[in-house]
Amino acid sequence: MSHADIRSPQPLDLSGDVADLTRALMDIESVSGGEGPLADAVWEALSGLDGLELARNGDTILARTSLGRAERVMLAGHLDTVPLPTTPGARGTVPAAVEDGVIYGRGATDMKGGVAVQLAVAGMIGRGELNPNRDVTFVFYDHEEVSADLSGFGRLVESHGELLGADFGILLEPTNGVVEGGCNGTIRLEARTTGTAAHSARAWMGENAIHRGARVLTRLAEHEPQTVRVEGLDYRESLNAVRIAGGTAGNVIPDSMTIEINYRFAPSKSPAEAEEYVRGVLGDAIGEGCELVVTDAAAGARPGLTHPAAASFVEAVGGEPLPKYGWTDVARLSALGIPAVNFGPGDALLAHTDDEHVAEDAVRRCLEAMTAWLS
Amino acid sequence: MSHADIRSPQPLDLSGDVADLTRALMDIESVSGGEGPLADAVWEALSGLDGLELARNGDTILARTSLGRAERVMLAGHLDTVPLPTTPGARGTVPAAVEDGVIYGRGATDMKGGVAVQLAVAGMIGRGELNPNRDVTFVFYDHEEVSADLSGFGRLVESHGELLGADFGILLEPTNGVVEGGCNGTIRLEARTTGTAAHSARAWMGENAIHRGARVLTRLAEHEPQTVRVEGLDYRESLNAVRIAGGTAGNVIPDSMTIEINYRFAPSKSPAEAEEYVRGVLGDAIGEGCELVVTDAAAGARPGLTHPAAASFVEAVGGEPLPKYGWTDVARLSALGIPAVNFGPGDALLAHTDDEHVAEDAVRRCLEAMTAWLS
Repeated sequence: MSHADIRSPQPLDLSGDVADLTRALMDIESVSGGEGPLADAVWEALSGLDGLELARNGDTILARTSLGRAERVMLAGHLDTVPLPTTPGARGTVPAAVEDGVIYGRGATDMKGGVAVQLAVAGMIGRGELNPNRDVTFVFYDHEEVSADLSGFGRLVESHGELLGADFGILLEPTNGVVEGGCNGTIRLEARTTGTAAHSARAWMGENAIHRGARVLTRLAEHEPQTVRVEGLDYRESLNAVRIAGGTAGNVIPDSMTIEINYRFAPSKSPAEAEEYVRGVLGDAIGEGCELVVTDAAAGARPGLTHPAAASFVEAVGGEPLPKYGWTDVARLSALGIPAVNFGPGDALLAHTDDEHVAEDAVRRCLEAMTAWLS
Repeated sequence: MSHADIRSPQPLDLSGDVADLTRALMDIESVSGGEGPLADAVWEALSGLDGLELARNGDTILARTSLGRAERVMLAGHLDTVPLPTTPGARGTVPAAVEDGVIYGRGATDMKGGVAVQLAVAGMIGRGELNPNRDVTFVFYDHEEVSADLSGFGRLVESHGELLGADFGILLEPTNGVVEGGCNGTIRLEARTTGTAAHSARAWMGENAIHRGARVLTRLAEHEPQTVRVEGLDYRESLNAVRIAGGTAGNVIPDSMTIEINYRFAPSKSPAEAEEYVRGVLGDAIGEGCELVVTDAAAGARPGLTHPAAASFVEAVGGEPLPKYGWTDVARLSALGIPAVNFGPGDALLAHTDDEHVAEDAVRRCLEAMTAWLS
């Protein structure tokens, strides 16, 4: 790719086939931290449309209609992708390739198909082809695939919070075209055991910190994860030791061990309630010589399917809504008081893989559902 | 220290105070791998004596009398030390220093006091001051404080095995002047669990390898270590997890974990019996998804105190013999069919510390006991 190509990618055509638009978005590499060229292209495309108020913060772009409708919906998606595959011959890379109606390349499912749907809707509104029954706020943001504190959506809340109000939100993360409501929360904790070091030939002079953690592991292993019904959806929880490390040498009684625990909890619980739940499971395995410390926590998001806008969306899209297990940015919308669902083309299990791909028809169907609902 | 000093240390005086000889040995740095100058000095000192057959392999030296006695004893000790302390002001360093009748410096207890006793006995025999009632084989060897396969004693067995026969052996490792019989064996095993990786938000799609190891830790934590009486000595055993590691990332169900286990077992057990014992303790915690693998094993050494030479040694030295818990090179003698005990000046708990020291009188008393027994 020449220098000129990098600085001036082909302008995005919002009026053609949304599958072609998906491929055009995928041809512009946008690994987290390098979203600039793609954000520029999106900005340029939106700037050519009528009736959209635009704002930008770094590589995060906001566009909104002001039609005076009774309701406002937000359509949100991130511009960045995880890094390109390093495996030779992997197809989940840049540029994209189409084979038998399937688009292969980085971002195919996560989530340039969804972004293409957002842009296509914006284009139809801007060109007067769609007269939406609700006002629409579009958000395209950077740094989703990295540390949460870098999130462009988070920055936008700080800088343009007053423009972000909405009655309902749709995050176009891949859900295979099914509505996935809300998301589970996630909390990370460390069970840290301490003991007294000693030579292992005179073990009785020490206290074994690894042995001390046995009960923590036993409680986790014996725990039966719950399924919690929230607003009609069944959120399956999980509670796991995800990492463990302890000991210093093969002839030394270990004086410390750390068990890293991850609890994915239903959106009916707050992070504080989630911590309480884990403490309840571990019981007296936590105590002298073993402390439990929260290192990170993020609330989930209730599905909000009881809201009239959500109900009409589910009806328009069809199918049975499912719960979302992984944490997504719907939790950020939820924190703003906006009930939100995940709905987008592509299989979430293909995200981040060497074989990332999405069917052209899946993107087209997602756009059709969206425009049908907004008409 | 000048270059000339390094190449030509003061010749060792075997005829003076054995405490002074200890200090002279300590003034010649001999961290494992750098035993050359000390081995040269020992070789030079022994070469000047009558009636000793000498042999050398690298920095390991053998010297033996051939007086035609009915019994032969071996006095063995290593020339190397662990590295010098890095803490500023630490006294367990080079050169040595004497304060109030205590010698401070690297090797004070482990084990230049013992080596000084060996050399002093050789000197007395060589100069005709001691007419020993038993033939004596002296072994001074390198690389004891490092990986067992580097051991100079091991090399000597290969190259001069025919010169190593003896009825009884004394290893002059520090025992505070008490006879410590034999030593425990040591076996290292790894319990390796396997599972299936999955995203921690969809944990039910995986199998948690850390949870799978809970029962191994529980069995180890609940195990009551045995004390085993062998030839009148009580060998205290220990069985411990010494290191643990598992998991790859905070949001991934771990697909493997390794628990490193160290079992210190009484000298009445073979390594194979030790492995069997550990398998018995772990029971059905080992099985599908969790294998147990032996990574290293070294037999212990029976105390051999029932042997007449040993009995007379214990009587001459006085006091109640104790078992040796840590693995020492008496196990190498035991493997050669030579019953052996540990007996030397200094406190083993000071070995390798920043404050390593030995009382001058402790070295002198050890020499007195040795010569009394040999007279």
